Amino acid sequence: MTQTSTATRLAPHPDRLLPADPGARRVARTVYDTVKDAPIISPHGHVDAALIAADQPFSDPASLLITPDHYVLRLLHANGVDLGALGRADLSATGTVPPEPDGRAVWRNLADHWDDFLGTPVRYWFETELHDVFGLTEQPSAANADAQYDHIAGLLASPAFRPRALFDTFGIEVLATTDGPADDLAAHAQLAADPTFTGRVVPTFRADAVFDPTRPDWRPVVDAVGQAAGIDTGTHAGLLAALRARRQYFIDHGATATDTGVLDAGSAPLSSAERERIHAAALRDPSSLTEAEATAYRHDMLFRWAEMSVEDGLVMQLHPGVIRNHHAPTLERFGPDTGHDLPAVGSFTTPLRPLLEAFGTAPGFHLVLFTVDETVFSREIGPLAGFYPAVYAGAPWWFIDTPAAIGRYRSAITDSASFTKTSGFIDDTRAYCSIPARHDMARRADAAYLASLVVTHEISEEDAVRTAGRIVSDIPRATFKL
Amino acid sequence: MTQTSTATRLAPHPDRLLPADPGARRVARTVYDTVKDAPIISPHGHVDAALIAADQPFSDPASLLITPDHYVLRLLHANGVDLGALGRADLSATGTVPPEPDGRAVWRNLADHWDDFLGTPVRYWFETELHDVFGLTEQPSAANADAQYDHIAGLLASPAFRPRALFDTFGIEVLATTDGPADDLAAHAQLAADPTFTGRVVPTFRADAVFDPTRPDWRPVVDAVGQAAGIDTGTHAGLLAALRARRQYFIDHGATATDTGVLDAGSAPLSSAERERIHAAALRDPSSLTEAEATAYRHDMLFRWAEMSVEDGLVMQLHPGVIRNHHAPTLERFGPDTGHDLPAVGSFTTPLRPLLEAFGTAPGFHLVLFTVDETVFSREIGPLAGFYPAVYAGAPWWFIDTPAAIGRYRSAITDSASFTKTSGFIDDTRAYCSIPARHDMARRADAAYLASLVVTHEISEEDAVRTAGRIVSDIPRATFKL
Amino acid sequence: MTQTSTATRLAPHPDRLLPADPGARRVARTVYDTVKDAPIISPHGHVDAALIAADQPFSDPASLLITPDHYVLRLLHANGVDLGALGRADLSATGTVPPEPDGRAVWRNLADHWDDFLGTPVRYWFETELHDVFGLTEQPSAANADAQYDHIAGLLASPAFRPRALFDTFGIEVLATTDGPADDLAAHAQLAADPTFTGRVVPTFRADAVFDPTRPDWRPVVDAVGQAAGIDTGTHAGLLAALRARRQYFIDHGATATDTGVLDAGSAPLSSAERERIHAAALRDPSSLTEAEATAYRHDMLFRWAEMSVEDGLVMQLHPGVIRNHHAPTLERFGPDTGHDLPAVGSFTTPLRPLLEAFGTAPGFHLVLFTVDETVFSREIGPLAGFYPAVYAGAPWWFIDTPAAIGRYRSAITDSASFTKTSGFIDDTRAYCSIPARHDMARRADAAYLASLVVTHEISEEDAVRTAGRIVSDIPRATFKL
Repeated sequence: MTQTSTATRLAPHPDRLLPADPGARRVARTVYDTVKDAPIISPHGHVDAALIAADQPFSDPASLLITPDHYVLRLLHANGVDLGALGRADLSATGTVPPEPDGRAVWRNLADHWDDFLGTPVRYWFETELHDVFGLTEQPSAANADAQYDHIAGLLASPAFRPRALFDTFGIEVLATTDGPADDLAAHAQLAADPTFTGRVVPTFRADAVFDPTRPDWRPVVDAVGQAAGIDTGTHAGLLAALRARRQYFIDHGATATDTGVLDAGSAPLSSAERERIHAAALRDPSSLTEAEATAYRHDMLFRWAEMSVEDGLVMQLHPGVIRNHHAPTLERFGPDTGHDLPAVGSFTTPLRPLLEAFGTAPGFHLVLFTVDETVFSREIGPLAGFYPAVYAGAPWWFIDTPAAIGRYRSAITDSASFTKTSGFIDDTRAYCSIPARHDMARRADAAYLASLVVTHEISEEDAVRTAGRIVSDIPRATFKL
Repeated sequence: MTQTSTATRLAPHPDRLLPADPGARRVARTVYDTVKDAPIISPHGHVDAALIAADQPFSDPASLLITPDHYVLRLLHANGVDLGALGRADLSATGTVPPEPDGRAVWRNLADHWDDFLGTPVRYWFETELHDVFGLTEQPSAANADAQYDHIAGLLASPAFRPRALFDTFGIEVLATTDGPADDLAAHAQLAADPTFTGRVVPTFRADAVFDPTRPDWRPVVDAVGQAAGIDTGTHAGLLAALRARRQYFIDHGATATDTGVLDAGSAPLSSAERERIHAAALRDPSSLTEAEATAYRHDMLFRWAEMSVEDGLVMQLHPGVIRNHHAPTLERFGPDTGHDLPAVGSFTTPLRPLLEAFGTAPGFHLVLFTVDETVFSREIGPLAGFYPAVYAGAPWWFIDTPAAIGRYRSAITDSASFTKTSGFIDDTRAYCSIPARHDMARRADAAYLASLVVTHEISEEDAVRTAGRIVSDIPRATFKL
Repeated sequence: MTQTSTATRLAPHPDRLLPADPGARRVARTVYDTVKDAPIISPHGHVDAALIAADQPFSDPASLLITPDHYVLRLLHANGVDLGALGRADLSATGTVPPEPDGRAVWRNLADHWDDFLGTPVRYWFETELHDVFGLTEQPSAANADAQYDHIAGLLASPAFRPRALFDTFGIEVLATTDGPADDLAAHAQLAADPTFTGRVVPTFRADAVFDPTRPDWRPVVDAVGQAAGIDTGTHAGLLAALRARRQYFIDHGATATDTGVLDAGSAPLSSAERERIHAAALRDPSSLTEAEATAYRHDMLFRWAEMSVEDGLVMQLHPGVIRNHHAPTLERFGPDTGHDLPAVGSFTTPLRPLLEAFGTAPGFHLVLFTVDETVFSREIGPLAGFYPAVYAGAPWWFIDTPAAIGRYRSAITDSASFTKTSGFIDDTRAYCSIPARHDMARRADAAYLASLVVTHEISEEDAVRTAGRIVSDIPRATFKL
């Protein structure tokens, strides 16, 4: 009788991520057990509503699990795999028809480099996903790559693995998508009107392009927003009116929040005249703007965003501090979201001051701050959330969405702002099948943190259990007005 | 027979904050036990000497424990409670007599929001204080708010709860206050002359206003310093002479240290002519100064401060990097110290270079550096304290005065500078009754850190015990020349 | 029978630095045991090859263990010991012959201040070294200072303590030195040609001076490189050609890497004309350069360095972010490397962008990034190593080469880039006898980290053992092309 080695066996431990100390583990397990099966509230993500609405079978394992996931792509790329070998089309290869990516070959790349993922949260999610969703019991390897690919491909063809069936299997209660400002939200409407679909899929208003007149898509999006709203966006006042109309359209389709990704959190307002002047200049010729003008326009728009949120009640999520497309040659060949967006130095307290002086105590205003620079949790986001009623400390995001970083986040934020002023977990993912694994990871990490407070007698076990429940339910509902 | 649930019972555990691992806890407890009853040396705080001198009963629980404590205020404010409901007078309500704050109602706000403090060091101190000082055995709640208020109010009326009795009960050996540069120190003199008071209350010279000619109180303080010293401060040389005289006055009244809070730690000296020029311009019209001139004046004054410390031996405490009064509307309504001072990015190594090149090896000069930005412990303060004889690493301060952050501070600083070049614990508090709880917290956190080194065999248990004793006694005495 | 107290006994525990929790310790010990006796690969250090080649006895304990080690010097200096009392010659005492330093007196300073090293990694290494290399069994103290000095001095006179014998005793397989760009590498050639020496000592090409035309040694080094290469460095093209020739010379003598220490990681290329213009101006009169010109020249040279690495395959190590010689008076009296180099704020993602856009995916290019600012591990170095095939995350360096910081480094880097894209341990030391202690410390710290992942079931014990083996062997070999 052969024995699978522990290194090749895929068997996620029931107590994984819980503390090693037996006393702490017992507490953590008690805490975790009370929330592990709670419905998933996902207030921020990138799954396409049309995917759920259409409910078609997924095409193949690689295009589902590897090609669209920039977390996976970047680690394979870092270890020498060309993105072209991972199913990404080479956009620079003009004049030729790109070959259909061979899913089986893509999968083999992952299997060959499985060891290069050791210890990362990406591998952690992936293991849970392969085991819990797809029933695999061996770690991916060159030897089993084809068999595992075929196994998953077989499952994807079955009704139980269609998007809506998985929605139920995953226990998702609310799923927020991210949508362009001119989107007609047809898929959301279709789902809402469909009595056979009992889940809740809500849109999120995201209009990054309108903030920055130097982006090539600024003008097209400004125009599209105007057309969607039936309002001329040739003036800045018109643009704001159109945006207000579109926000209302989103609210009417179930949205409770906006999301914004900007380079920095600057928020100084401009006079109406100055806004109009820069807007008009940008419409005439964006390249005529000085960097200072473009920045001033963007900072003013962030201020207006808050102003609109105070008016219409949409929660304002802010994700600043990402340097997009760091490697121009990769952008040219494979487009954006291919693993080379990188963290910038985070800064909130000073740049957000104008916005917070104006709206930080406005009734009902919720501003959820996210960062990819951990140093700001203790220095900025915690202290801001610990004074301003409007400010909530967003969960650790992207590069720091890891068990260890969640522990550090909790420690830094709890010291300044306790639990109430946090966001609850945000999966922020395009990888539909990783959603339960990611939420489960966060529940375990939070249970571990809460247990650490219990065993040092800082809070009671009863409080820990109650808080874990709040973190997966009451807190995201309240913060995101769900 | 009803059982109080663990969530509502208030019973601080004797082993709280000590590590969970049984082996580490045994060591930590041994270490802690040797220092838990050691006298309190409080070399930096904000209790008013007149309070001790007058020795009048405290008026009521809310005005003692809530209204003046910006740590408590900010968390209640963050969770939606208006500062006006917490006993702070609304300064913008001109023409009307502000209503006497209702202490009982203020207290109820705390009780209602007790859960919003869970896991914070503020709740940790408060629990210890309510239990150890006031004998309460239930967590504050809406149900017991009035009863707890009455219980505390009753105690405050008794002689055992007067300031001097508490001074003894708390086991305070030395208490340093913080005092304006023109203060006559009458309360300190009164206490020193009073044979019935055996404690030691020493002043600390703090003259932030004289550093910054753009502050509205710069001119009044410059004038007041001149009057107090009997020296004309119409010239910068006169101001320096008056400051020297006032420092000597403080020394004569028992002071061993100064304290300075500035926006940044810049310390470049100016020529005498340049100093005089800016000083004269500021006296004529502060609004005529350029930002560069005001900054240069402030940086020069920091250099002079060190120069004076080298001369007269006063320990120089430096607290840079706080953005004061972030929310202008709150400043207008409720004044300063109302919870919206926020941490700036810390920086020491480059801005302090001129000062350290001049005085970093001056015999007897002690410069204690504090920060609210944790990242500088490892990068700047530890390395500076690990080379310059003059530099001491101040305890984590304000937002980072927490059990977890104390552990991170110890780890970062010990790596670069061991224990000798640290400050010992600083309570930095206006909240008189929280002093023993805060020092106890630090002793526990330090015992936990020392135990962590023992159980990994980095230091011996005997060294840990000895070091814990040094941290609460020899080290603050040596660092602050007490 | 007297019993030595635990505080005075010097007996490094076999399980030191391994986690306290019994379960975690068992795993960590298993992991550590498999690598503790593995040969030492030291791909970056500052031992002089001539020391090994000459193989003369070391002169005395103080000049071997104290005087040249700036880690030890800075802590003694921080606690009040003048560098002149530690064997450093006072360069400012012109006209007098400096007295021969008294090794015994120098050693006594260490013994007197032994307590000021408690908890630091410096004491940790020193203890291991004194015990394992020199067989001492008591902590240094005033009482035993002379006896310990004599004991070590006696050993140093014996053949077993000559450099080559220690090379074998220490189990060193490869030792990389750091060498000037005009060095003839005679010692390396001698060692390579000597059939009685079986170790491998390889040079590393370091030419910091040529980056910065404002350094007083820029011109001499530029001239020396030209002479050594037989190429006129009067033009920038000539300098690059000479550097290429010298790099090839190093490769011919076994080098696999370069090393560069610059103030910042800026890497913007200049046009050939602009480079030549600044080069010519600097040759005429370096003081005529503007700061912007000098910086542009330096940033371009970093770009060229990568270009040359892509061409010739030398691994490029980068150590930016150190403020050299912070205390001018100490520099004047005692020269550089006397403990007052200090960390600057780290920055990689933005300044390295030009270099990485050009070479980040170049086949075979290895760029190993080091920092003394921990905050960049999570925010910059991990994410860069997690996308760019060329980028490797260098081990924590200098101030952060400590057990605790190694744990934080592993946590931050593993989250973004796993283990493959790291450097393995770098001792970076001039202190020859500390090499085994430092590598042992890193092996213990890594075992502790790996065990922490095992006990939380993030990786298997089998994977932990395998990874520990890779970290001490395969990974440094691959990263440094050894």
